[in-house]
Amino acid sequence: MKDYVIGIDIGGTFTKTGFVDREGNILAENSSPTEPFDSVDVYLYNLVKELKEAEKQLDEPYRIVGIGIGAPNGNYHKGTIEQATNLKWKGIIPFTDMMKEHYDLPIKLTNDANAAALGEKVYGGAKELDNFVMVTLGTGLGGGIVVNGDLVYGHDGFAGEQGHVNVVENGRKCGCGNHGCLETYVSAPGIKRTVFELLAKDTEGSKLVKYTFDEMDSEIIFNAAREDDPVALKSFEETGKTLGKHLADTVALVSPSKIFLFGGLAKAGDYIIKPTKKWLEHFVMGLFKNKVDIVPSKLIGKNVAVLGASALIWNELDK
Amino acid sequence: MKDYVIGIDIGGTFTKTGFVDREGNILAENSSPTEPFDSVDVYLYNLVKELKEAEKQLDEPYRIVGIGIGAPNGNYHKGTIEQATNLKWKGIIPFTDMMKEHYDLPIKLTNDANAAALGEKVYGGAKELDNFVMVTLGTGLGGGIVVNGDLVYGHDGFAGEQGHVNVVENGRKCGCGNHGCLETYVSAPGIKRTVFELLAKDTEGSKLVKYTFDEMDSEIIFNAAREDDPVALKSFEETGKTLGKHLADTVALVSPSKIFLFGGLAKAGDYIIKPTKKWLEHFVMGLFKNKVDIVPSKLIGKNVAVLGASALIWNELDK
Repeated sequence: MKDYVIGIDIGGTFTKTGFVDREGNILAENSSPTEPFDSVDVYLYNLVKELKEAEKQLDEPYRIVGIGIGAPNGNYHKGTIEQATNLKWKGIIPFTDMMKEHYDLPIKLTNDANAAALGEKVYGGAKELDNFVMVTLGTGLGGGIVVNGDLVYGHDGFAGEQGHVNVVENGRKCGCGNHGCLETYVSAPGIKRTVFELLAKDTEGSKLVKYTFDEMDSEIIFNAAREDDPVALKSFEETGKTLGKHLADTVALVSPSKIFLFGGLAKAGDYIIKPTKKWLEHFVMGLFKNKVDIVPSKLIGKNVAVLGASALIWNELDK
Repeated sequence: MKDYVIGIDIGGTFTKTGFVDREGNILAENSSPTEPFDSVDVYLYNLVKELKEAEKQLDEPYRIVGIGIGAPNGNYHKGTIEQATNLKWKGIIPFTDMMKEHYDLPIKLTNDANAAALGEKVYGGAKELDNFVMVTLGTGLGGGIVVNGDLVYGHDGFAGEQGHVNVVENGRKCGCGNHGCLETYVSAPGIKRTVFELLAKDTEGSKLVKYTFDEMDSEIIFNAAREDDPVALKSFEETGKTLGKHLADTVALVSPSKIFLFGGLAKAGDYIIKPTKKWLEHFVMGLFKNKVDIVPSKLIGKNVAVLGASALIWNELDK
């Protein structure tokens, strides 16, 4: 008998699903659009239909042992999706309750970045770690904090919003409504904004002057950095400094043994990790110096959205 | 049969002890100097002698169920006191191991601020709370973070150093060796430094011009604020802003339901709590607005050092 967890990642544009075994192998992967469904009821009806169809691809005998869901503004305690700005379903959606009408199984839900942290614990580089931090550097900056072996959900189920700590008072406008949040400086769009600030001061012969704001992305900046473009290199240095300073504070609060970086910007490897490490060590309290590793996630290149979601269930079953 | 925990708080100047019952009543309280003992062996010999003497004051029948110790740079995992700058004993002291030669009991050790947080959970306002933050505002700024019902010790046993997150790059010199740490702005000496900065800009007819740096303390500033002294009021506003901004970041990371303030500066009540609340709400991410209470510790006026230390054991026994 083979056990599987259904992993579901609900994104603004696409919903990704898969049947995941304890080793992190994903079977019957699927991706279908989230956008067209104005009604969550119709969306769910369609999602369940697709899952039942996909399940037919599994070899007998098998057993589904639970469903893990990653969703924006996912509330772990209540199983709800609350006021998610990039989903069409407004208000508070009792998603796991709705799912339970179709599946009589353990169902857990959290936000995608928290799920990614659990993915690292169940399948990745944090298998033996009880205290670590995951930082996902993509369109935004997300994260998950694991303390005493458990994810930190907080009293309301929403903890771990590392992207929205305050970096610059009255700083860059953030999608959350505030200004100066960490993710406006440290993320794929954040490093682009930094490049434009740097170009405004001094172009230094940089090739990045050839791109419009719309055209520029973190991959262009990464490629320029590899060719020693001075502005690109400086933008990684500044981004690493901002991230390293924030992580120094996180270390003082929760003292993780490792920090994992994941996401588009993390693919830049040492270009982002080296300055982040340097500035973390510069800013961190003496008690914690030279104790914390910053490493790339071991899940880079894998379907972390579905893996992370499924980890929600395996992590419970492992206890 | 009455059960007691021995609570021991090791400070740079004094060591406070007491026998604490489950309700937080302290019997046979004692305070003796820490300073004169250059050798931790002689100190411990003397401490144990005093404890055995004090124990005679307890009514029979009774039982000692454990020993809890609060100490600067106390490592919970190892039971060691490590490189404490305000103690004469240098290096790494295996304190609980040394204590176990005298008492065959459960012995736990952590830093004093973490102990205070557990005190709030066992005897104070956090009895029913699984996610809260304690901030102690005294000579420094200490703290303890409780997540999922447990104190956050981190991988190395030193987590919860809220006083040493970064506030101002190249800011005020901190006792820890860094510059610009939170406790250089938010603490009894911190608010004094802020008053001197404010006076340098504009004395505004303040009475605080009459005090030397040595004479000034947070009580003088508090009394001036109560008489509407403009600089004193402004210093509380600025201190609350800095603390509120830091707490907004802490909320985004660990999402506590309540934040307790304790210590000398916390005695200023609304003068410090109101601006802290206002600025926390200003800086915190929308998801967390109007969710977190900031309240004075319920242990204010009590011997929190000894209570907190003893809570280390009761908290374990309660599980």
